[in-house]
Amino acid sequence: MIIVIDAQANQDERAALLALVEQVAGQRRPVATTCIGESEVIAIDQAVLDTQALEAIRCQPAVAQILTPTTPYQLVSRHFKASPSSIVVGDARHCDPVVIGGEQAMPVIMAGPCAVESREQLLETARAVKEAGATVLRGGAFKPRTSPYQFQGLGIEGLRLLAEARQETGLPVITEVMEPEMVEVVADYADILQIGARNMQNFPLLQAVGRRGRGKPVMLKRGLSATIDEWLLAAEYIVAAGNPNVILCERGVRSFDPQTRNLLDLACVPLLHELTHLPVIVDPSHATGRRELVPTMARAGIAAGAEGLILEVHPDPNSALCDGRQSITPAELRTIVHEARLMVQIMQDADRLSQVA
Amino acid sequence: MIIVIDAQANQDERAALLALVEQVAGQRRPVATTCIGESEVIAIDQAVLDTQALEAIRCQPAVAQILTPTTPYQLVSRHFKASPSSIVVGDARHCDPVVIGGEQAMPVIMAGPCAVESREQLLETARAVKEAGATVLRGGAFKPRTSPYQFQGLGIEGLRLLAEARQETGLPVITEVMEPEMVEVVADYADILQIGARNMQNFPLLQAVGRRGRGKPVMLKRGLSATIDEWLLAAEYIVAAGNPNVILCERGVRSFDPQTRNLLDLACVPLLHELTHLPVIVDPSHATGRRELVPTMARAGIAAGAEGLILEVHPDPNSALCDGRQSITPAELRTIVHEARLMVQIMQDADRLSQVA
Amino acid sequence: MIIVIDAQANQDERAALLALVEQVAGQRRPVATTCIGESEVIAIDQAVLDTQALEAIRCQPAVAQILTPTTPYQLVSRHFKASPSSIVVGDARHCDPVVIGGEQAMPVIMAGPCAVESREQLLETARAVKEAGATVLRGGAFKPRTSPYQFQGLGIEGLRLLAEARQETGLPVITEVMEPEMVEVVADYADILQIGARNMQNFPLLQAVGRRGRGKPVMLKRGLSATIDEWLLAAEYIVAAGNPNVILCERGVRSFDPQTRNLLDLACVPLLHELTHLPVIVDPSHATGRRELVPTMARAGIAAGAEGLILEVHPDPNSALCDGRQSITPAELRTIVHEARLMVQIMQDADRLSQVA
Amino acid sequence: MIIVIDAQANQDERAALLALVEQVAGQRRPVATTCIGESEVIAIDQAVLDTQALEAIRCQPAVAQILTPTTPYQLVSRHFKASPSSIVVGDARHCDPVVIGGEQAMPVIMAGPCAVESREQLLETARAVKEAGATVLRGGAFKPRTSPYQFQGLGIEGLRLLAEARQETGLPVITEVMEPEMVEVVADYADILQIGARNMQNFPLLQAVGRRGRGKPVMLKRGLSATIDEWLLAAEYIVAAGNPNVILCERGVRSFDPQTRNLLDLACVPLLHELTHLPVIVDPSHATGRRELVPTMARAGIAAGAEGLILEVHPDPNSALCDGRQSITPAELRTIVHEARLMVQIMQDADRLSQVA
Repeated sequence: MIIVIDAQANQDERAALLALVEQVAGQRRPVATTCIGESEVIAIDQAVLDTQALEAIRCQPAVAQILTPTTPYQLVSRHFKASPSSIVVGDARHCDPVVIGGEQAMPVIMAGPCAVESREQLLETARAVKEAGATVLRGGAFKPRTSPYQFQGLGIEGLRLLAEARQETGLPVITEVMEPEMVEVVADYADILQIGARNMQNFPLLQAVGRRGRGKPVMLKRGLSATIDEWLLAAEYIVAAGNPNVILCERGVRSFDPQTRNLLDLACVPLLHELTHLPVIVDPSHATGRRELVPTMARAGIAAGAEGLILEVHPDPNSALCDGRQSITPAELRTIVHEARLMVQIMQDADRLSQVA
Repeated sequence: MIIVIDAQANQDERAALLALVEQVAGQRRPVATTCIGESEVIAIDQAVLDTQALEAIRCQPAVAQILTPTTPYQLVSRHFKASPSSIVVGDARHCDPVVIGGEQAMPVIMAGPCAVESREQLLETARAVKEAGATVLRGGAFKPRTSPYQFQGLGIEGLRLLAEARQETGLPVITEVMEPEMVEVVADYADILQIGARNMQNFPLLQAVGRRGRGKPVMLKRGLSATIDEWLLAAEYIVAAGNPNVILCERGVRSFDPQTRNLLDLACVPLLHELTHLPVIVDPSHATGRRELVPTMARAGIAAGAEGLILEVHPDPNSALCDGRQSITPAELRTIVHEARLMVQIMQDADRLSQVA
Repeated sequence: MIIVIDAQANQDERAALLALVEQVAGQRRPVATTCIGESEVIAIDQAVLDTQALEAIRCQPAVAQILTPTTPYQLVSRHFKASPSSIVVGDARHCDPVVIGGEQAMPVIMAGPCAVESREQLLETARAVKEAGATVLRGGAFKPRTSPYQFQGLGIEGLRLLAEARQETGLPVITEVMEPEMVEVVADYADILQIGARNMQNFPLLQAVGRRGRGKPVMLKRGLSATIDEWLLAAEYIVAAGNPNVILCERGVRSFDPQTRNLLDLACVPLLHELTHLPVIVDPSHATGRRELVPTMARAGIAAGAEGLILEVHPDPNSALCDGRQSITPAELRTIVHEARLMVQIMQDADRLSQVA
Repeated sequence: MIIVIDAQANQDERAALLALVEQVAGQRRPVATTCIGESEVIAIDQAVLDTQALEAIRCQPAVAQILTPTTPYQLVSRHFKASPSSIVVGDARHCDPVVIGGEQAMPVIMAGPCAVESREQLLETARAVKEAGATVLRGGAFKPRTSPYQFQGLGIEGLRLLAEARQETGLPVITEVMEPEMVEVVADYADILQIGARNMQNFPLLQAVGRRGRGKPVMLKRGLSATIDEWLLAAEYIVAAGNPNVILCERGVRSFDPQTRNLLDLACVPLLHELTHLPVIVDPSHATGRRELVPTMARAGIAAGAEGLILEVHPDPNSALCDGRQSITPAELRTIVHEARLMVQIMQDADRLSQVA
């Protein structure tokens, strides 16, 4: 249940409302208070309220409106907020900001190496992806690796290199954060905090990027076999903790055929657009794990309506320390960017056409 | 292993070769002899041959060439036939033939009701889909239903109605065949024989459409959780039985999230184009099971490079006897056809561009 | 909905009832009439009946009782028949019959080679499995193989050899039937008709073993990724077609880890015992695909309450033409049989104990 | 690659070896030094070593032996340590310690509520499970919940209640830790640290329980769709970080049939016993999500060779704040414990028999 607070309510009225809600929710039932767009809201689990409690809340002077989505997620629901959210990425003092989602025309293209390996590799790639049309630079400083013996990333040194690459190219930077204790540090350098697929239900981490990430946009990758509901509830954790700037990223789910690394679920894009106001990014690199499939699936992702793509690009994929098998070259990126723009043009024309008809 | 027979070889040389191969293969190891394009070929399991046997075959005068694909499927492999197969559908005496696959520009659009329910429903739908731009009419006469108590289709009466609709609209007709004994009957009426997902590994049926379907094109739907290799081996059954005119149809695979009926695996489209010369059709209706997702996923299917779409269309989806939940209207079909054409245009332009570069 | 016919009703009353039901069901909505135990019943899809029609049926003199299971399957439901079905296998003129399911104490052990390869191999294995304690002989004469080039089985020659092995050992025989046209022939030789996993939703085949198998018991293997409901509806097809002697066989479902061939779903055993009166057999050979896991999973299958096991046994697994990787030796079979008996003893004691308490 | 250090080597020799290995491994390639049983070992990724580097290491005086498992995991591999690990749980000053795994006869039974809800609920359940035969008390103080609005556990208050229940019953306590920062606190109270399924690849958490958990045993639940290799590599993270006391817990994997919460993969038990020396616990409560299936699957888990069970028990399942649907009663637990003991007896007898034969 979402209680929208009356913008005219005074401090006492607000405090009285919150106290009542917390009392009704009872011990250890979380109550989220946050702002979405212009609205200040309180969200709680509807299941804990009986009719009497509900009535008592409804009578509070601070209440502007009560919404009861039928879905388990609430603040991220399109029922609560009908207009698509647009999320501003990057601070104009350090880079060229981009807008993801909303009514903006062009899909965002995030590109860069899987892992930051060295100053040279990163700067060379950053320049190349910028030149090819990318608008955000990706690169892993902290790498979640399946084996403890694999290269684990350059850590804080990697963050510094990303900041340097941002300064040089003007591209805002996205990088992964893996543990709550590191959220502030990563937020010092990055413009988007990435939550990896393996951490989609790492709830303390979700709460940390919600509370301690200074509102920096968070890109939440879908878990290896997460349902849409679980994914949106994970996003709800971040929003309920105070950070409404969440971007979803489809990167394929686990399936039975070893031919591809994962199974890219593009139908989730239009489905998410029905269910949530959050923007959706598609990652064809991790989804397929095969370089030769990436350009086609990037195009299909845009056709499915994604607000952007995230792509692994390496100047020399065969020598990459990580995921070279799925990295494309800057030249391939350029074609993808070009096609994506034309594709969006067609889709907008077709939409206009069908609205006329 | 594929043995290409020398077109100049005489009858005796051919017979000697075949006898040798059969002897080498041994009892109950099938040997396929068939024609692909201009070539007459023999295919067998390479595993049964030792070096000596291989050498003996190689010395036969009737042998033009020996190919050894590294994949378990052989005749459908792109290693064997590099150019994409184009399959002619429909006989000009009864309808307007269409070509699926190959170098042809426009994707085929197969559309119609899930099941043939009545003369009126079918003819009305047939006219409507033709008018909206479809080039093949789909409709089920024999329906594989999960429950024995559900509507099982109109049977032969349904086939007759399909032939009538073809005559009226000029659209060639695709319909499902469910058992070997019915192959000839269905081939009497249909222009494409459809093998449903549940029958993808019904091997006697695959052999029957290969041998007894008079070369009528066969559309082979992917099994509920079939790997790409299993699917291509199922296609190989049909081709090895003498019918090279196989069309693959991706209709989603089984997965864990009940939000959609199946999980549409669009990455299989470019992957199949690498592995096989057979054309690929996408079925967004069965894949998603949700009408509102069909137009977007149809667009994404074309963007993924599919040679066509198959779509459930019903003049009044809410009253359909079967699968109304996933049927679109003729008006929605029209938009899909329009977008598909523009999309193909862009993709061809982009290909040209990247070949120039 | 199940209409139990009054045993006292005369011919006219029965005919009137059936005519009414068929009229109400309408064209192409199947109506099943069959016998389960002592009861003669009619089953139809409840969804097609309105209150008025239901009332009209209820008033028919031939109606003894109307049951409305809440599940889509009806005749196989435990709601319809609370006592576990026991199925007699084998004709005493040709072999030593066994009973599967019901209140009988000992689990049935079906064992033998994947494929009948030769007279020697089959007879040797038959004697060995009999000696090790097996009570049914398995062996494939018609083999559904993923590739058209693999060994496809000895066919009718294989059936003859199975009959010979039965005569010599007294073991009833189970073998697979792959197409409707072959049901009578296979039923001439086999004591149990096996429907393979790939044919679980081959509906014409299900109807054929229901109608044309002369009531021979049918073992229905679970499809590669079939839900429990789909599986029970497939069983319902057979029962609704007139053959109540259905045995279910869990053989693992498709999953994401290539370490085992399939994922054995043992929890389906107690779940099925809740939902249906049909007996359940476990196949640890196909489920795991690894010989070294078979004995342990056989034991676990019995512990899960299975009414029996089906096991691939080969005198020399390494030289098997098919599935040698998952075949155990006769000596391993002997240990499995011994443990299974002790296990059942414990479970019966524990049940007695907990009923006392 | 595992380098076993010579117990006779002096400090300088050890330091020289380690320095060489670190130099060879290069920046950011982790090198693990730890003790397993009596052996002090160094583990690294074999892939980074060329022949020359390997030779240089081999010549170091501190090297006793070099092992090169063919699996990606090393220290947890049965190739490295052939005898099953036995893990001592609980400090005799605070409770009755139990041994998990190894040659010990009886499976451990961990039982208790999903969540610690109150002092009364916990103490009552603790007494009841002790009386029913459980040897470890389970209970969640920090609860990972899919929705941010659900009850999140009592936190540190819950830990204190668990310690009180331990003191009263003598049962060692297992409880979940969700974030690296909380490892020390949870280790202050708990006897086993549980890593939940959603955190199986939360690598900072794995490292934290490895390094900062003071050697307290860790129970690592299998991820929702983790392969066996991924699971063992997650265990390897903990061992490589310095804590060899890892217990694996199978709790079902995600699958396509909503009938059960997860799909219990019992075949993983004998498979893990082949691949690793770590003990394996089975959790039938989370695996099935259905109370009525738990006793049977507990029995099947023991039959599959599990070193123990973890079970959700609630004095009044219907009123549980969490997972009541899958909680059994203390009376049901008693029967499970009784059967488990008999089952183990049989299995040991059968093993003895087959060793004699």
